[in-house]
Amino acid sequence: MAKPKNILYAQSGGVTAVINATACGVIETARAAKGKVGKVYAARNGIVGALNEDLIDTSRESARAIAALKHTPGGAFGSARFKLKPIEEDRTQYERLIEVFRAHDIGYFLYNGGNDSMDTAWKLSRIGEELGYPVVCIGVPKTVDNDLVLTDNCPGFGSVAKYVATSIREAGFDVASMHSTSTQVFVLEVMGRHAGWITAAAGLAAESENDAPQILLFPEITFDQEKFLARVERTVKRLGWCAVVVSEGVRDAEGKFLAEGGTRDAFGHVQLGGVGPYIAQMVTDKLGYKNHWAVADYLQRSARHIASKVDVEQAYALGAAAVKLAIAGENAVMPTIVRVSDQPYRWKIGVAPLKDVANKEKKLPRSFITRDGFHITEACRRYLSPLIRGEVPPPFRNGLPDYVRLKNVPVPRRLV
Amino acid sequence: MAKPKNILYAQSGGVTAVINATACGVIETARAAKGKVGKVYAARNGIVGALNEDLIDTSRESARAIAALKHTPGGAFGSARFKLKPIEEDRTQYERLIEVFRAHDIGYFLYNGGNDSMDTAWKLSRIGEELGYPVVCIGVPKTVDNDLVLTDNCPGFGSVAKYVATSIREAGFDVASMHSTSTQVFVLEVMGRHAGWITAAAGLAAESENDAPQILLFPEITFDQEKFLARVERTVKRLGWCAVVVSEGVRDAEGKFLAEGGTRDAFGHVQLGGVGPYIAQMVTDKLGYKNHWAVADYLQRSARHIASKVDVEQAYALGAAAVKLAIAGENAVMPTIVRVSDQPYRWKIGVAPLKDVANKEKKLPRSFITRDGFHITEACRRYLSPLIRGEVPPPFRNGLPDYVRLKNVPVPRRLV
Repeated sequence: MAKPKNILYAQSGGVTAVINATACGVIETARAAKGKVGKVYAARNGIVGALNEDLIDTSRESARAIAALKHTPGGAFGSARFKLKPIEEDRTQYERLIEVFRAHDIGYFLYNGGNDSMDTAWKLSRIGEELGYPVVCIGVPKTVDNDLVLTDNCPGFGSVAKYVATSIREAGFDVASMHSTSTQVFVLEVMGRHAGWITAAAGLAAESENDAPQILLFPEITFDQEKFLARVERTVKRLGWCAVVVSEGVRDAEGKFLAEGGTRDAFGHVQLGGVGPYIAQMVTDKLGYKNHWAVADYLQRSARHIASKVDVEQAYALGAAAVKLAIAGENAVMPTIVRVSDQPYRWKIGVAPLKDVANKEKKLPRSFITRDGFHITEACRRYLSPLIRGEVPPPFRNGLPDYVRLKNVPVPRRLV
Repeated sequence: MAKPKNILYAQSGGVTAVINATACGVIETARAAKGKVGKVYAARNGIVGALNEDLIDTSRESARAIAALKHTPGGAFGSARFKLKPIEEDRTQYERLIEVFRAHDIGYFLYNGGNDSMDTAWKLSRIGEELGYPVVCIGVPKTVDNDLVLTDNCPGFGSVAKYVATSIREAGFDVASMHSTSTQVFVLEVMGRHAGWITAAAGLAAESENDAPQILLFPEITFDQEKFLARVERTVKRLGWCAVVVSEGVRDAEGKFLAEGGTRDAFGHVQLGGVGPYIAQMVTDKLGYKNHWAVADYLQRSARHIASKVDVEQAYALGAAAVKLAIAGENAVMPTIVRVSDQPYRWKIGVAPLKDVANKEKKLPRSFITRDGFHITEACRRYLSPLIRGEVPPPFRNGLPDYVRLKNVPVPRRLV
């Protein structure tokens, strides 16, 4: 019997609090399927490592270290923001990958990323066959942006959602106590250049119109300064304070990012701050309210300490499913999350063809945003609420989360 | 026998993740001492409420609601940034407070705040006697800045410390995975206008020189751009990435805040961003590294979800001790934390005279900062490490921390 082929696993794009849980699902499932698949190699720094034949032998890691991936944020093998050129323009990168696969007996390529990565995996699945070295290519979904199609939601998103909703609730309690003599308006800037999923999730913290956040600014809704300021003023007059969550991707009527709205520093650089400080300053300039603002940036997508249990479980399950699909020879597919019911929340794993996922983007539906454009609807809450459920804190050591760092032993090179 | 006098409790200054745990300690201890003290009233929005005779009757809250204060951030009765005028200049505010105390049978005033508040409490303790209405005035320490003297540490600080150290560790795992094709330098701005305690605490996340944060910028150390950039470059050359924690209070050689360093937007406003984005942009301009930055702002001091167990316990114990001191008639004092040993960490409650605490500031000792000025020493770790120990997460409901909002029923006014 032929020696079973190896798996190559690669992480792609911005990392999340749970992408390593997917890696854990891949490696543990492959280890349990001994005899059916060979080793799991990981590409160092994502597809860049694959192109450079810079591979990591995960069989050199202990079972304990691999299990610890389930509670460790970031990308354990390194990720990459690197998009292959369109195959019509340049086949060499694709051919190089197949060459590396052939040199290391890679029979299965598992690409863990967003819609760009699904495109790459799909193209690889086709060119391998053309070159006489067929590789089973599986996309494994991952993105805090929650914008992949054909899956109910994306691993990584639920944990950011839990973090931003928790954070704005907490900051709301703070501002509510300070408003009589200090801060009246608090602004939190969150991720989401194109889709407002994360901003929407922050809205879960508000269970009544008195709760933070009272105002959400979505990239899907053109920013209207007058309407926004009127809403802030009305809220402050009613409650004494106001909490705003703004997506980094909010744009003005001309389609320009607000944070690029022409403000420059003394050296002519585009203003350093993001849209959070921009909005906060606008409130103070126009309404005279004292402001404070926060920009969560990477803190939101790496906050494994407050990860969603549902998110961690789904991330793991998708990694496990990818290996099972690979062993079954299901080429050019992506395992998905299928929602069975909202309440009680039930989900199962499904499968989608890569070609139908690649390069598509799922926006926040207009029906998830209230008519006035400043908050989320009940339909949105029904969709989002299960995704932030459950707590699975990491182990702590000396008061801090105890995250694992792998040895990441290189696979000896075989190509020149 | 005379009816026992009531307690007036007031929160002051910036709130914390655990100031309500102190309130819980005050109220639960007073309830248990029935017969020795009357009701606990709380001043709405801190001393402002006391001046306006706007008092809250905490006896109208259930035992369960009061117990929930122990896990709820912010200030449950409202706080104030409001400093009384010096008594030599204007006695009327002090006299007004005594008038309110007299009208509501207040025999004990518990003022929960920083060094300004200790000064106010001290002055009140003297003027009451002069006016023939002696009130037992107790200061209860609270400040994320950790800058009160005569107490080993201040409630509120340990939880911010745990939050910032956790956050920069998590962001470090993120940047480490992204550096090959994306972000190389990550900057986190933290609180601390005058003292670098919070910045120092972030340093706990680095257990080796390869860990985030590799560079700390303290307000105690004059910012030297050349040395800083050289250190960033050296770190990126060694590891591929670098994580920096900067205190909002960092100053240049002329004593000016860095973030006020002359950059203005197109309308002539002082630049919106804080020192975090300023430092991040400097790194990109001078060294060409791609940066990301975060400003935690209120998120850090309201993050009850990741509070330190030691901090919560001490906050509660100080509130309880304040009531016991009050009942014992100990006037013009502040209960303190006394460290008995570092390892195992043991502490007990002590007492300090308010006049020795008022208006003093405890800076980070130079011996806690490494010679090069960019990190913390072993002595600093020994001091800080116990303060972030233990996890006491709040209860969660629907995936989010379940915090309490009190009814805050007003006490009927008696003055005109």
